[in-house]
Amino acid sequence: MRVTEPEARDLAVRLLRQRGVPDRAASIQADVLVEAELRGHPSHGLQRLPRLLLRIERGLADPVAEGAFSWRSDAVLDGDGCKGLGPVVAFAAIDRLLERVERTGVAVAAIRNAQHLGMLARYVEAIATTGRIGIAMSSSEALVHPHGGTRRMLGTNPIAIAVPSAGGTPLVVDLATSEVSMGKVHHHASVGKPLQPGWAMDADGRPTTDAARARDGAIAPFGQAKGYALGLAIELIVAALAGTPFAPQIRGTLDADADCNKGDVFLVLDTDQSPDLAARIADYLDLVRASPPERADRPVGVPGDGARARRSASLANGFEVDPQLWATLTDLQHDQTNSRRETPS
Amino acid sequence: MRVTEPEARDLAVRLLRQRGVPDRAASIQADVLVEAELRGHPSHGLQRLPRLLLRIERGLADPVAEGAFSWRSDAVLDGDGCKGLGPVVAFAAIDRLLERVERTGVAVAAIRNAQHLGMLARYVEAIATTGRIGIAMSSSEALVHPHGGTRRMLGTNPIAIAVPSAGGTPLVVDLATSEVSMGKVHHHASVGKPLQPGWAMDADGRPTTDAARARDGAIAPFGQAKGYALGLAIELIVAALAGTPFAPQIRGTLDADADCNKGDVFLVLDTDQSPDLAARIADYLDLVRASPPERADRPVGVPGDGARARRSASLANGFEVDPQLWATLTDLQHDQTNSRRETPS
Repeated sequence: MRVTEPEARDLAVRLLRQRGVPDRAASIQADVLVEAELRGHPSHGLQRLPRLLLRIERGLADPVAEGAFSWRSDAVLDGDGCKGLGPVVAFAAIDRLLERVERTGVAVAAIRNAQHLGMLARYVEAIATTGRIGIAMSSSEALVHPHGGTRRMLGTNPIAIAVPSAGGTPLVVDLATSEVSMGKVHHHASVGKPLQPGWAMDADGRPTTDAARARDGAIAPFGQAKGYALGLAIELIVAALAGTPFAPQIRGTLDADADCNKGDVFLVLDTDQSPDLAARIADYLDLVRASPPERADRPVGVPGDGARARRSASLANGFEVDPQLWATLTDLQHDQTNSRRETPS
Repeated sequence: MRVTEPEARDLAVRLLRQRGVPDRAASIQADVLVEAELRGHPSHGLQRLPRLLLRIERGLADPVAEGAFSWRSDAVLDGDGCKGLGPVVAFAAIDRLLERVERTGVAVAAIRNAQHLGMLARYVEAIATTGRIGIAMSSSEALVHPHGGTRRMLGTNPIAIAVPSAGGTPLVVDLATSEVSMGKVHHHASVGKPLQPGWAMDADGRPTTDAARARDGAIAPFGQAKGYALGLAIELIVAALAGTPFAPQIRGTLDADADCNKGDVFLVLDTDQSPDLAARIADYLDLVRASPPERADRPVGVPGDGARARRSASLANGFEVDPQLWATLTDLQHDQTNSRRETPS
């Protein structure tokens, strides 16, 4: 079914408010989920919401916590999420980094005990709109096998980077260091579609294209040995800075039973913020876009272009949501009056 | 032919000294080249030396410059390499970062106008031996086509990361964001060996496995769209911080005709430097190594393991050097007495 952005945002905000999330925090959390939908990443969208609501109801997530912060050193912020909503804690940290970076030029936050962040692109692009470079890294449950290995030992360990450019359209890179997402494996399993060779191992450590068997197995790192190396480095950086466990011990982002113990790292780097630099970057990106494509009907893209185009289309025409998910969310409302104009609780 | 580490180091140091490079600087530059040989990366080893010597003789590289530095902000160091040797300028910057990071917790250097760095691993592992996380990024000549593109538009844009661990063996990741190196393409061309499909395009933008044709073409980014995204992000980060040009305008690392205008970025992050953290990291890496391998005869590796093993073997038994390269280097000596014990010039 097709849903409009205000419909999705309103429903998400209402569901969060009804579980004690303050207005502003509900807006921030809803925004991250809805933005993922708008850009065509439903795996990081509304389907995350029922589990988050359940985590709040069970006391695993604190609806009002905004994190406790202290400066470990001049430019490194130590954050305890105190079970707060991931985006709420993250933006509280980023606000502090953006203030500090004016003096220090670079600033880092390392956060433990916060809920799932959702799509990392949202955080770094918020940093880039202030004219700074933003980098985000997060650790996660073990799902990825080492290059040359067969057992899930690493998280999907995503990294996002945004660099400001002219015209308010930064370069935004957001990638998990796995070849595919486990969400995609589950989706293939549900529709009976085979996986591509090289994507996954089964629980016995054998390469498989059977999505159902891969669900209990492990997904491959992207880009062979190099992607594995990068994912492992992110695993260690996050654990070292945030003091959080490694993938095999991480819980609480894919379940509704355990405290969340993954780590998040944000890095803000000042640039000279000159129009000249922004224009140089924009010109180079345009040069890349204008370079000869491999297929005549597919111009060369720059990371973030597709997401921006999908977002525009979704804002204009709405976006597709699994009807069963929408029904679930609708049913999760405590008050079924369903009014868009209800007064804030 | 087989060469020992002291032989290689002595010859490299002598050649540099004979062109006016001071003792300490010659040692630093020779070390980076010889360490690459010891680890089995000859593309970043002695074969870089003749061109560097020529660059010094032509005034494109300054044998005595150590860079000019100023703190752009509290934790961001602005570096002008003043045409100095890449490793000499880089370690001058890293020394300043290591001092500053005790107060700031994170510090960054952005350097322009320095010669080629060689193997990035050397710099970040030096940082990691002090108990900090090191990250290095460098820009380079356009050799890599965009994902979905055919023309060389990006540098190979390497990134290296080292995270301290117990036992003095940090995790060391060092990767170019290209699928292969142009050096490998040249090597395949010289021995008439075909490339693997997907490695390269020819100058007309057509996929090719003909190494000779690929030399004038473009190499692929590693890991498809994700590796391309990462390489592009590094391209922009370096240009934005160091104020250097983008790949299509970069010169002076593969030639002996142009000033060097690529950029380098180093980032140092303090950790708590506790034995507990170092032990946790070492335990996790051992867990990864002990996880079931894909092939029974090939245990799972951790990035840097192979390089360490090759280094030990090279130190014990020497390493292979192309006899023609060794003859070239020997001939480049001004004084052919060839004494190991010559007094410093």
